[in-house]
Amino acid sequence: MLVGLTTLDGELLASEKYILGGRVSPDDVLDDLDAALNRLLARVGRFRGDITALGFCTTGVMDVDAGLIYMNHNMGWAEVRLRELAMVRLGLPIVIEMDANAAALGEHWRGAAHGLEHFVYVIVGTGIGAGILLGRRIWRGARGAAGEVGHTVVLPGGPLCGCGKHGCLEALASGLAIQRKATAALKLGRATILESLEGDISAQAVADAARGGDSVARQIMDEAGYYLGLGLSNLVTLLDPQALVLGGGLGWGAFDVLEAPMRRAFDEHLNYWADRKMLLTRAALGEYAGLYGAARAALDLAPGHLQQEVRR
Amino acid sequence: MLVGLTTLDGELLASEKYILGGRVSPDDVLDDLDAALNRLLARVGRFRGDITALGFCTTGVMDVDAGLIYMNHNMGWAEVRLRELAMVRLGLPIVIEMDANAAALGEHWRGAAHGLEHFVYVIVGTGIGAGILLGRRIWRGARGAAGEVGHTVVLPGGPLCGCGKHGCLEALASGLAIQRKATAALKLGRATILESLEGDISAQAVADAARGGDSVARQIMDEAGYYLGLGLSNLVTLLDPQALVLGGGLGWGAFDVLEAPMRRAFDEHLNYWADRKMLLTRAALGEYAGLYGAARAALDLAPGHLQQEVRR
Repeated sequence: MLVGLTTLDGELLASEKYILGGRVSPDDVLDDLDAALNRLLARVGRFRGDITALGFCTTGVMDVDAGLIYMNHNMGWAEVRLRELAMVRLGLPIVIEMDANAAALGEHWRGAAHGLEHFVYVIVGTGIGAGILLGRRIWRGARGAAGEVGHTVVLPGGPLCGCGKHGCLEALASGLAIQRKATAALKLGRATILESLEGDISAQAVADAARGGDSVARQIMDEAGYYLGLGLSNLVTLLDPQALVLGGGLGWGAFDVLEAPMRRAFDEHLNYWADRKMLLTRAALGEYAGLYGAARAALDLAPGHLQQEVRR
Repeated sequence: MLVGLTTLDGELLASEKYILGGRVSPDDVLDDLDAALNRLLARVGRFRGDITALGFCTTGVMDVDAGLIYMNHNMGWAEVRLRELAMVRLGLPIVIEMDANAAALGEHWRGAAHGLEHFVYVIVGTGIGAGILLGRRIWRGARGAAGEVGHTVVLPGGPLCGCGKHGCLEALASGLAIQRKATAALKLGRATILESLEGDISAQAVADAARGGDSVARQIMDEAGYYLGLGLSNLVTLLDPQALVLGGGLGWGAFDVLEAPMRRAFDEHLNYWADRKMLLTRAALGEYAGLYGAARAALDLAPGHLQQEVRR
């Protein structure tokens, strides 16, 4: 859990990170959050009354307007009325937001997408998802399900995805896909520096090995980047955004390794790619994008005069 | 050319269709249009002063705000300042709009998408394109290039598309793709009723033969419908619209033949398809969708009090 205090202008005053461990019931999470807020306030010499609102971002399926989380697999949550729980436990108004959308808001407010009207923030981590900003507003879809770029099919009949379909972008270019390919390469006995690693091989380790010139790792990262470019070229063909901002553990942490094969896929699959002048960039805020974005989302709960102040 | 007069509420008073033939310079087109308008006015007992504004929809690349058509291959137009030309030649304010966007506006105003907030109008004809309405507004993209669903890649390494790429939806499911497959089947000597047709085989003829039970034609239409469903499932996964409205010569004229394989592709490639309650429907206005939409677009030029009246 990453918790922080920002000003109404998005200056980060203090933050801390802690492991949730087994304490993942909504009540446990709010208890821990309560204590963390007080520690942060003490550190910067402020008080509870100085907090205008709380933004909370997470993965899962949710009704943002209702403050209701239908389903969060990581936490094991189902039908959690987080807004009401937070009111009672913390005495604070709360806005919830999906991870990719929050990260998009964060990068727009204080990061790589500042000043843009239309862009897509793409999380590439264990899974792949996107936050779509059109006309400076999150596009959520008719049922809140927009942005699932990880489950667009880029290779019909391709590898099985966690969702049960075949050939999803997520099954070809996510951290899990990279791990799976590395494990398969080892089983095949291919000569690679990855052999020397102990335990499960992480996608980050594969990216590191690729940086080090390991040819097996390079091939795996190359393929992942190429498919990422293929899936995102379809997104760009449909939406014509001003920019793609890559975030998440791999999108941010391995952008240097993924960029060249992505651009190769754009060259092959995206009409007028050279003329588009579309920005393709690494997120500026790294793992803090969601924190800034949750804070930005929370401003929608601020009294009118405060909103005026911050909406530049 | 299809020309019509509508009321401010979108009631079609009169229309006529004529062939442009060789007369396709902008001046020729406006001359013919001038004469057609007078014929239509005479038919309904109205006068030039009763026309509030003109909407003009066409294919091609254009700057809608500037009333400028950069490129229209069918007409051989390049850099045509249609707004200024129309002012001079017709003495009427004019709005230009892209074909798929105009059709989307038309179906929203008076057709199958009436009352919806978010939907995508998909033209399936010689080519494949889409008009995207989000929050009751056309989503044009940062550079006016959004909606090119026909050039999303659904089968990497697949057949060559007219755009130079491989495996575009348009190369697999458009009228041209269907014609090409039918011609190939005949060359292979496959037994089909299509043999008995004279001259070039149209996609409509293939659809007719499929309706009649011809197995070769059914296989061709089945494949086209399946790939159409695959490409559109990616669009739905990204955008989560309330509805897909199928128009264009094949989308409208062969919806009965294409619907079943499309739905099969949705079942296979679209998560939560069964739960989405997304409307998949045939356009209601057929070839008139663009005419109604052009009229609707032209209302944006109407004086304020008229706009109020019609914006329900």
